[in-house]
Amino acid sequence: MTRYKLTIEYKGSDYCGWQRQDDVPTIQQAIEEAIHGFCQQDVAVHASGRTDAGVHARGQVAHVDMGEFSRVMEPFEVAKAINAFLRPQPISIVSAEIVADDFEARYHAVGKLYQYRIVNRSSFPAIEQGLVWHVKRPLDVKAMHEAAQVLVGHHDFTTFRDSQCQAKSAEKTLDRLDVKTHTYDDYGGQEIIFEAEARSFLHHQVRNMVGTLALVGEGKWSADDLKSALAAKDRTKGGPTAPADGLYLVRVDY
Amino acid sequence: MTRYKLTIEYKGSDYCGWQRQDDVPTIQQAIEEAIHGFCQQDVAVHASGRTDAGVHARGQVAHVDMGEFSRVMEPFEVAKAINAFLRPQPISIVSAEIVADDFEARYHAVGKLYQYRIVNRSSFPAIEQGLVWHVKRPLDVKAMHEAAQVLVGHHDFTTFRDSQCQAKSAEKTLDRLDVKTHTYDDYGGQEIIFEAEARSFLHHQVRNMVGTLALVGEGKWSADDLKSALAAKDRTKGGPTAPADGLYLVRVDY
Repeated sequence: MTRYKLTIEYKGSDYCGWQRQDDVPTIQQAIEEAIHGFCQQDVAVHASGRTDAGVHARGQVAHVDMGEFSRVMEPFEVAKAINAFLRPQPISIVSAEIVADDFEARYHAVGKLYQYRIVNRSSFPAIEQGLVWHVKRPLDVKAMHEAAQVLVGHHDFTTFRDSQCQAKSAEKTLDRLDVKTHTYDDYGGQEIIFEAEARSFLHHQVRNMVGTLALVGEGKWSADDLKSALAAKDRTKGGPTAPADGLYLVRVDY
Repeated sequence: MTRYKLTIEYKGSDYCGWQRQDDVPTIQQAIEEAIHGFCQQDVAVHASGRTDAGVHARGQVAHVDMGEFSRVMEPFEVAKAINAFLRPQPISIVSAEIVADDFEARYHAVGKLYQYRIVNRSSFPAIEQGLVWHVKRPLDVKAMHEAAQVLVGHHDFTTFRDSQCQAKSAEKTLDRLDVKTHTYDDYGGQEIIFEAEARSFLHHQVRNMVGTLALVGEGKWSADDLKSALAAKDRTKGGPTAPADGLYLVRVDY
């Protein structure tokens, strides 16, 4: 057997998340079936972490043990072959490489980058439907970015953690949380990008932070309100969970 | 009656272009039906120009005569009402404004900006499927941008004009044609953006210019080859037509 590290892009809109489940389409199942189509092997594909229903990835990473294709095929040809069996699904193996037999996509990850996209304007985003969160009320990007710095560092993130989260501890170190904008069109709209980097995240952490920062952007909350919510270590003191549509797992570092 | 100028965004993938036709879905028909749904009036919506099947718009402009809603509704409320009847279609009125009764979206346009997007990497673009042209062979952006300057200025663009084009003259002035890139991911891929500005364009002109510049990007053609092709005034001397998926009508100037 040879262990491959796969870097994977997907549009999560029509999938019930990464993790294989009965009777519903998942990214993991689609890739395992494509690998089966390619080489008739029943494999398990292990990701750096689950993504929820509707969440997208530009650089999810997974490992999988497959036959010794390396004797006859380059890794990029293996990726190409799996991609041929993934068509026409919106899942693409962006790169494949051979790694050591003990490489673990989940346990060896040392960092992750998530992006979250908001289209902030009155009218419905026709082109980016399903790929962004549509927020109609004008958001103050500078206020959100400044308030976001309250969350950077080592904290107990219970306020921003889903009640179903199974992590033993809610303590995490958030390395970076930036909120940026670029003018999106000539009609007063803007696209807003959040970037969050950490060694790892709690379940729904990014979406809960974005949903809460949107309250700051609307002027309903101050940075001090955010600080108090964080200190409360109570999910009910946080803001709402932003929709899955805008979230992208962009990169996993090893 | 009141004349409204509408600025419209749409994802063209599932439509047979702007112009109303029998038995196939078009953008024009969808908007006219939404306006009918809103105010029970049979209206004709006149665009700045047609877009082809599969082509997108961020800022198509059209005019339409409707009842005197201005006595009771602000223009943005009119846009909102039409949008409610457009749901869930990927068409969105981004803005509406009242204009003079003799305003003509087509004849008063003094400039247009088109963008064309290429995802240039080996693997299939899962997230941007239908929104970009996927080119697998590496393209030299600098060479394409330099060669593109051959096309800027006043020329006979017969080489880049569809054989079905109905314009009386093939002479046009291309004000700007820029080719830019940004690193798209960490796996060697790049996204390439073409921007073309002119008072008006011939049928398929942008897509034919992009398809021909891709030959330059691949190293098959030089800037001199492009110059000769332009001088030949012969469509058969030009490169292929780039697919509709990557083309966006971004802005119309008045």
